[in-house]
Amino acid sequence: MNSGFLASCAQIIGQDHVLTSESDQQAYLTDWRQRYTGKAMAVLLPTSTEEVAALVALCAQHRIPCVPQGGNTGLVLGSVPDQTGQAVVLSLKRMDRVLAVDVSNNTMTVQAGCLLANVQAAAEVHQRLFPLSLASEGSCTIGGNLATNAGGTAVLRYGNSRELCLGLEVVTPKGEIWNGLRGLRKDNTGYDLRDLYIGAEGTLGIITAAVLKLFPQPRASLTALAAVPSADAALQLLNVARSDLGPILTGFELISDFSLQLVLKHFPLLKKPLDSNCPYYTLLEISDHESEEHANGLMESVLAKALEHGYATDAVCATSISQSKTLWQLRENISAAQAMEGKNIKHDISLPISDIPTFIDMADAALHAAFPGCQIVCFGHLGDGNLHYNVSAPVTMRDTDFIQQQQAVNRIVHDRVHGLNGSISAEHGLGMLKREEITLYKSALELSLMRSIKAALDPDNIMNPGKLI
Amino acid sequence: MNSGFLASCAQIIGQDHVLTSESDQQAYLTDWRQRYTGKAMAVLLPTSTEEVAALVALCAQHRIPCVPQGGNTGLVLGSVPDQTGQAVVLSLKRMDRVLAVDVSNNTMTVQAGCLLANVQAAAEVHQRLFPLSLASEGSCTIGGNLATNAGGTAVLRYGNSRELCLGLEVVTPKGEIWNGLRGLRKDNTGYDLRDLYIGAEGTLGIITAAVLKLFPQPRASLTALAAVPSADAALQLLNVARSDLGPILTGFELISDFSLQLVLKHFPLLKKPLDSNCPYYTLLEISDHESEEHANGLMESVLAKALEHGYATDAVCATSISQSKTLWQLRENISAAQAMEGKNIKHDISLPISDIPTFIDMADAALHAAFPGCQIVCFGHLGDGNLHYNVSAPVTMRDTDFIQQQQAVNRIVHDRVHGLNGSISAEHGLGMLKREEITLYKSALELSLMRSIKAALDPDNIMNPGKLI
Repeated sequence: MNSGFLASCAQIIGQDHVLTSESDQQAYLTDWRQRYTGKAMAVLLPTSTEEVAALVALCAQHRIPCVPQGGNTGLVLGSVPDQTGQAVVLSLKRMDRVLAVDVSNNTMTVQAGCLLANVQAAAEVHQRLFPLSLASEGSCTIGGNLATNAGGTAVLRYGNSRELCLGLEVVTPKGEIWNGLRGLRKDNTGYDLRDLYIGAEGTLGIITAAVLKLFPQPRASLTALAAVPSADAALQLLNVARSDLGPILTGFELISDFSLQLVLKHFPLLKKPLDSNCPYYTLLEISDHESEEHANGLMESVLAKALEHGYATDAVCATSISQSKTLWQLRENISAAQAMEGKNIKHDISLPISDIPTFIDMADAALHAAFPGCQIVCFGHLGDGNLHYNVSAPVTMRDTDFIQQQQAVNRIVHDRVHGLNGSISAEHGLGMLKREEITLYKSALELSLMRSIKAALDPDNIMNPGKLI
Repeated sequence: MNSGFLASCAQIIGQDHVLTSESDQQAYLTDWRQRYTGKAMAVLLPTSTEEVAALVALCAQHRIPCVPQGGNTGLVLGSVPDQTGQAVVLSLKRMDRVLAVDVSNNTMTVQAGCLLANVQAAAEVHQRLFPLSLASEGSCTIGGNLATNAGGTAVLRYGNSRELCLGLEVVTPKGEIWNGLRGLRKDNTGYDLRDLYIGAEGTLGIITAAVLKLFPQPRASLTALAAVPSADAALQLLNVARSDLGPILTGFELISDFSLQLVLKHFPLLKKPLDSNCPYYTLLEISDHESEEHANGLMESVLAKALEHGYATDAVCATSISQSKTLWQLRENISAAQAMEGKNIKHDISLPISDIPTFIDMADAALHAAFPGCQIVCFGHLGDGNLHYNVSAPVTMRDTDFIQQQQAVNRIVHDRVHGLNGSISAEHGLGMLKREEITLYKSALELSLMRSIKAALDPDNIMNPGKLI
């Protein structure tokens, strides 16, 4: 049966694009963090929406599970197949073309396999900005970004991937093509299919193309780092910045002192930008449509106010693009620095922003009580209420032993997140990794509503089974 | 059977809140534009989510259709019952409380029956802005705004209702309560139920409460009116304004000269703010977080650039709040002025912004060919690609005769909208009015996907049947 199916696949996309050998498949079967390797009957590499549709129709006919894959950079095992070897991986990476740019409508139509960095670059050619920006932008695809509703570092100003997409093209689990490639700011003609497919992690259909929102390029970007005496003070500073800067405040990141120390230890070329020591630092980014001078004036006035009220104790404002980059590197290398210390237990949580200080106090205390000496690397997108709250072993414990405690650590962290009406996956999704975990926190009704939708749109459970739901 | 059902309703909400007499029901059965009056078995006025749930469970048990209603200000017959008299109207208007304000999280939790104007006022008490703003804000409810994904005059900067809502509470067609009242900027834990209920016009469940996004109040708002030589020039001006003002450009409205003349004719207290005559005018609104002086400087520089490039031929900038209001009245009284001329055929369309000039040329020509002398009142939210393109009878024709041509006029307008990949309902929804019309333009697949969702979430077709789908 499989040989007939594979022959039909080869008829659609050519033998060269049906990968069946272990070595050819390797990169498609192992996740980004290299924790898991699945098995697949084949990896399929279509080059057009019609080919995707024909392949999915074939999967439907043969009841073969289909795992859509973009850049395979996900952190929750959403884009790799399970161990059965019965599924095919359908990689969109050959569908990497920019189809159209409408400068005056501020939109761009792209195939799902476009690398995020290439989408950004294509916008720049037209003096436009596509603001989605993530650590993996050189490897991840826009289709994957949309399927997981990726967040990143400019959500405060521009929103998540969801808010950056106006229209989609989707291949359904039956192999039909839904053309929803509309470049409209307003369209109230029925159910919001677009937002249902966005964030569905490929379990309801395969996103094959999208219409993205573009923005005029700001004339100046400016970064500053402020030392703050507490998480509460960071929150006060955020509120002052939001009030005085309005929508030009683009990013507002929190970095605990311990996180910063790890980066300075493992990246010796990066220097500490402030002399003082403080429990937390905040990174502020603004993007301004007037001028560098104007941006500077605004940032300085916000920082002066923060210093005056004691929300900050010290601050530095980048005076060049390279200084800005250096400040961002302090933030962006935290995960890498913690990894150099050994394995750790990661969380990607969100909370009402007002509850962040309470959460940190409660979770820190509970973790230190349960695992004395454990090392907490707390940082993230404070402006979005999103923390990456990662826990490393006490220095007296081997990291491999500590990792065995993942369930207990998750329970301590996630119970407190849930108690504050937060989310256990802010921007990474559920995939295989948190699919069980979420059932502890979502109501039976919500899970049942989600299952009804899955059953209605994918009755044979062919699309990315075992993920999300 | 009905008497048993009504007695049970009375047990839940009290006899006084089960309206069965014609006179008591009157206001709930006729639509805002007074074109249609339906019939209902009863109008039910619950005061809590639990009461709504109990009433809907009762409807489900007795298979009685349920028509949710907010302020009943909709324009597409979405909130009134049909002629059968078998349905109940479930009015949320007694559920009008602000439940919580979290200033630091910039969120507010409200019951669905809150008037939009009261939501705005409650935000203002806390020095916050809830930016949704519509002509009917004194009468419409936030639940209705969300059920129809209302747009309004600040979409360019703040988005539609969809973008202003973080969480919902919904009573399902079975009478269960889904608590999705989350105040989170990021939450990727499953299908986007929130956005599925938003814009579903009460056909999938009843929105009973919502968590809304608040914003810091801008320090200055400023309005200007510019005379522009063509729709194309208006578009050029929009692009300059977006580029130079960035996100502080809050509104960008288009007004045809004929629309303005009608307002000046029927509202003699309003004076023409510019001496020159031009085919179009644009209204620009900015909201600034610095100061009035700063806002003024920016607006003047944009207008100067537009005059220099010929995108505008004349312009005036409001120098006081009352002048701003007067400029807005020119825009806001267009519909009323056209109504004073007689009945007309309205459209609420959206297009890729870049195609607006092409559309106007094509539709104007086709209408004038088919109905020589017909009068086109073209205005709307150009910044969102949304036009209200309304057509009145030629002066030689009685308006009642012209109205008989509605189908033919709709076909001319909507076919051209569809040809340019636009939408026949930008911000008003489908209701009963456009439910048939949309089947001409949506693909069979999209309609079938929508029907699958309806069947999955409301298998007995109890929620607002005959609307949207």
